[in-house]
Amino acid sequence: MTVQIPQTYDDLQQKYQSFISRRDNDRHLNIFWETNPSKFNENNGQKFIELSGGMPHESFFPIDSMNLNILKEPVSQDTISVDITKEKPDKLPLLRTLQYALSEGFQPLIDFIMNFITKLNNIPLYDKSLWKIIIAGGSCDSLYKFFETCTDESTTVMVEELTFVPVISNIINTGAKVIPLRLNLDNSDEGIDLNYMESLLTNWSKGPYKHLNKPKFLYTIPTGQNPTGLTQSIEKRQKIYQLAQKFDFVILEDDPYGYLKFPKFNHKDPNSNIYKDGITSQEYIEKVLMKSYISMDTDGRVVRFETFSKIFAPGMRLSFIIMNKFFYDKFLKFQEISTRQPSGIGQQIVYSTIHSMAHSSNDNDVIEAWLQWIMKLAGNYTERRNVMLESLYKTQSYKQNLLDFVEPSAGMFVIIKIHFKGDNIIEQMNDLAKIMDNNGVRAILGYKMAVDQNFSHDNLNYFRLTYAYADNTAQIKEAIDRIDKSLVQYFAK
Amino acid sequence: MTVQIPQTYDDLQQKYQSFISRRDNDRHLNIFWETNPSKFNENNGQKFIELSGGMPHESFFPIDSMNLNILKEPVSQDTISVDITKEKPDKLPLLRTLQYALSEGFQPLIDFIMNFITKLNNIPLYDKSLWKIIIAGGSCDSLYKFFETCTDESTTVMVEELTFVPVISNIINTGAKVIPLRLNLDNSDEGIDLNYMESLLTNWSKGPYKHLNKPKFLYTIPTGQNPTGLTQSIEKRQKIYQLAQKFDFVILEDDPYGYLKFPKFNHKDPNSNIYKDGITSQEYIEKVLMKSYISMDTDGRVVRFETFSKIFAPGMRLSFIIMNKFFYDKFLKFQEISTRQPSGIGQQIVYSTIHSMAHSSNDNDVIEAWLQWIMKLAGNYTERRNVMLESLYKTQSYKQNLLDFVEPSAGMFVIIKIHFKGDNIIEQMNDLAKIMDNNGVRAILGYKMAVDQNFSHDNLNYFRLTYAYADNTAQIKEAIDRIDKSLVQYFAK
Ligand SMILES: Cc1ncc(COP(=O)(O)O)c(C=O)c1O
Ligand SMILES: Cc1ncc(COP(=O)(O)O)c(C=O)c1O
Repeated sequence: MTVQIPQTYDDLQQKYQSFISRRDNDRHLNIFWETNPSKFNENNGQKFIELSGGMPHESFFPIDSMNLNILKEPVSQDTISVDITKEKPDKLPLLRTLQYALSEGFQPLIDFIMNFITKLNNIPLYDKSLWKIIIAGGSCDSLYKFFETCTDESTTVMVEELTFVPVISNIINTGAKVIPLRLNLDNSDEGIDLNYMESLLTNWSKGPYKHLNKPKFLYTIPTGQNPTGLTQSIEKRQKIYQLAQKFDFVILEDDPYGYLKFPKFNHKDPNSNIYKDGITSQEYIEKVLMKSYISMDTDGRVVRFETFSKIFAPGMRLSFIIMNKFFYDKFLKFQEISTRQPSGIGQQIVYSTIHSMAHSSNDNDVIEAWLQWIMKLAGNYTERRNVMLESLYKTQSYKQNLLDFVEPSAGMFVIIKIHFKGDNIIEQMNDLAKIMDNNGVRAILGYKMAVDQNFSHDNLNYFRLTYAYADNTAQIKEAIDRIDKSLVQYFAK
Repeated sequence: MTVQIPQTYDDLQQKYQSFISRRDNDRHLNIFWETNPSKFNENNGQKFIELSGGMPHESFFPIDSMNLNILKEPVSQDTISVDITKEKPDKLPLLRTLQYALSEGFQPLIDFIMNFITKLNNIPLYDKSLWKIIIAGGSCDSLYKFFETCTDESTTVMVEELTFVPVISNIINTGAKVIPLRLNLDNSDEGIDLNYMESLLTNWSKGPYKHLNKPKFLYTIPTGQNPTGLTQSIEKRQKIYQLAQKFDFVILEDDPYGYLKFPKFNHKDPNSNIYKDGITSQEYIEKVLMKSYISMDTDGRVVRFETFSKIFAPGMRLSFIIMNKFFYDKFLKFQEISTRQPSGIGQQIVYSTIHSMAHSSNDNDVIEAWLQWIMKLAGNYTERRNVMLESLYKTQSYKQNLLDFVEPSAGMFVIIKIHFKGDNIIEQMNDLAKIMDNNGVRAILGYKMAVDQNFSHDNLNYFRLTYAYADNTAQIKEAIDRIDKSLVQYFAK
């Protein structure tokens, strides 16, 4: 296949039309309004009067103004106070965010995101006029809508054998087929097994899925993978991108944990934490963050999903997607027909919070302030990760080889693999979970996150633990003690 | 057909299983978490530690607290100040609303809605255990999801011939067919033409749609209809409900304008406004509001759609649906798989705003305070409606019989019908719109809201005007002057 860098919208259309679902091709959008309300236009020197849009006048909105107290950094008590009124901040006042608005999200928030991802180099390599950012209502919403737009009965989607399973529902509900990719569950070569993947694709017509169409999509969580906690190396990403070009599939990069990236656990100095040592944002970008798939994308074949859930708050239900303009147009049409715009007040709060963290409204200051927030957050996660791993290494269960685990260098999760005897893994997992429950600790039973339990037969024996939700590090230690106790009890039976 | 009041969930299932779409029947939901996080549970006397849900600890959320300034009444400058913190209000603090939450919405907000609709008697007549309320992201989202859940290629849906056309997209994108119902566009017998409807249903197999399945749904906007502004009488609603029973269809009552209800325009006293005269909430409920379809529902065959867009603010993107528990379960499953919960912070703000309008946290006080807000709003709309109608009656165009119009007694819209000569209505509408544009006024071209332009051939010659969005009543007068001028110019050609 000759690799062609798209130069025009037509190039995108030609290249990606076959990636659009039958259902989307049939989708109608009936609107009756003008997309540009003219209220603020002048015409022949007089102000326009708008009797068209069914929008309540802003004086009818009960919220006159609001004031936010923003934490200066995570966990701290210091706050900054921010006023939001019907006129303020001037680029995105309440007057606009409480009103009906365009389905793609507010431009000032999109502009901020554009500046931010440009600074991080999370942008594609093809022409800037050919890709866009859209805001949606959380990555669940983003992913749901994307699969509605792109997959149907004829589509095969590759996913990691252990994954964030709600996405499986999104895919198979469109009629598409999901096939699992083998994962390496150790720190030597974390994540998707490249040999398995390449051989599957190369020998497709003789392989186990030969009855299915060749895959059009890879859905992957490259950094701090859910549930395994693993992070793909840059070399692995580059090879996977080459496979995507060779076998012509699109990479869906779901990256909620990308910012929560830390160096490997240091056995000699378990408390080491670069974020406490005073790392600069430039170092964070260059040395800590992983290179994203989108930053390698010459072809328009990467779609990147980000969310505010893990770095701001899940209850905002806000996310965004970076994708080529052809996919964008299809996605936007669907958003227009289904939910319309994501919460205006939510966009307001995210925008105002981030902007008020900065010393000035200068774009670079705003980016820097948000980076500082994120780095402080990553520092907190580093500490929690360190405590959990150190505690795990100290357990009886580890010493007696009842369990082992994989050290994460990103995200929120650690998996502990239990060394059960015998073959009835699921039954044993359930029994053990009951004992843990009795001891006052709960984790996710790993087999529930397998795409295909037969395929992953040897990888079902794990619990997914998170260090994100505990009240403090003492509680993390206590939780690991309880797990240890539970295992010792279980294996003593 | 024998009419049976459902007594059990099984009754509902039997009665309504055939109203569920093929697509929904095939829909999978893969979740891996427990729906009840146990963080706050005690177990064996010790606090549970939750390592399961991938939720960030609340100390990581940047918003420490917020303060809202709430208008005491619409347009006023007087405000009430409300504090929201990670612990306050205790039934729904930021700690919860910034976090992941259940897809159906927050129970304290649902409880308020339940109390409110009970007070208004907008509740069905069958057993309370058999229906529920769910919160969604605006009525567009509600309607989209409902049709995804219930309609497919085999479904026929009746709609008013002129309607809120985005809903048409929602319906036909599921493969279902839409058929228009004749509307009476005058104040004698407003809305759906009952004779037409009954005869269509009775003579289905000989009628124009005999190639389609008999209709399973009626989608209707009963009060202040969009675009016509018309309101169905109670007698009409009762007859339509009887038809629904006889021909076994489900009524989808989309009622965003129901609260904005006013007495008929008083020609002798154009400024009369019961809301300024000091009407009580009890009178509002008993004498002003229309009886809803859901309040007549013995069978579980009415689904009622409400939204906070028109009485709170569109940018909240919050709505709710009242429906039988069988439909509810299907809808909830789909919400769980697609968007998940509506904006948590939005729910917080609606909840806190409404509760802080009240003098106490007593349920009745809260209901009364919200009713007072809504009545004040309806009073503002009454005034705007009065001004627009009075201005229209004074126009040259009206006096010269270039236009006539239908007096609304609810909602935001007035339609003006233009007395064009000749048959090329759409062309003439477009020409006239250009002149209006030049004169600095814009309205919705009526033909864009027709379901089937052939069917509605005689009803395409109107503009939909709204009095909702103008800055004040002087602007409404000015807008009508500009329309008048445009018409006189156009017909002088
Ligand atoms: C891999 C992955 N994708 C998506 C999501 C959902 O994110 P959001 O809260 O933005 O819907 C999660 C959350 O747990 C996740 O782990
Ligand atoms: C009849 C009707 N239904 C639904 C809606 C959409 O309401 P929401 O803002 O809740 O999505 C509108 C808004 O114009 C409407 O007129």
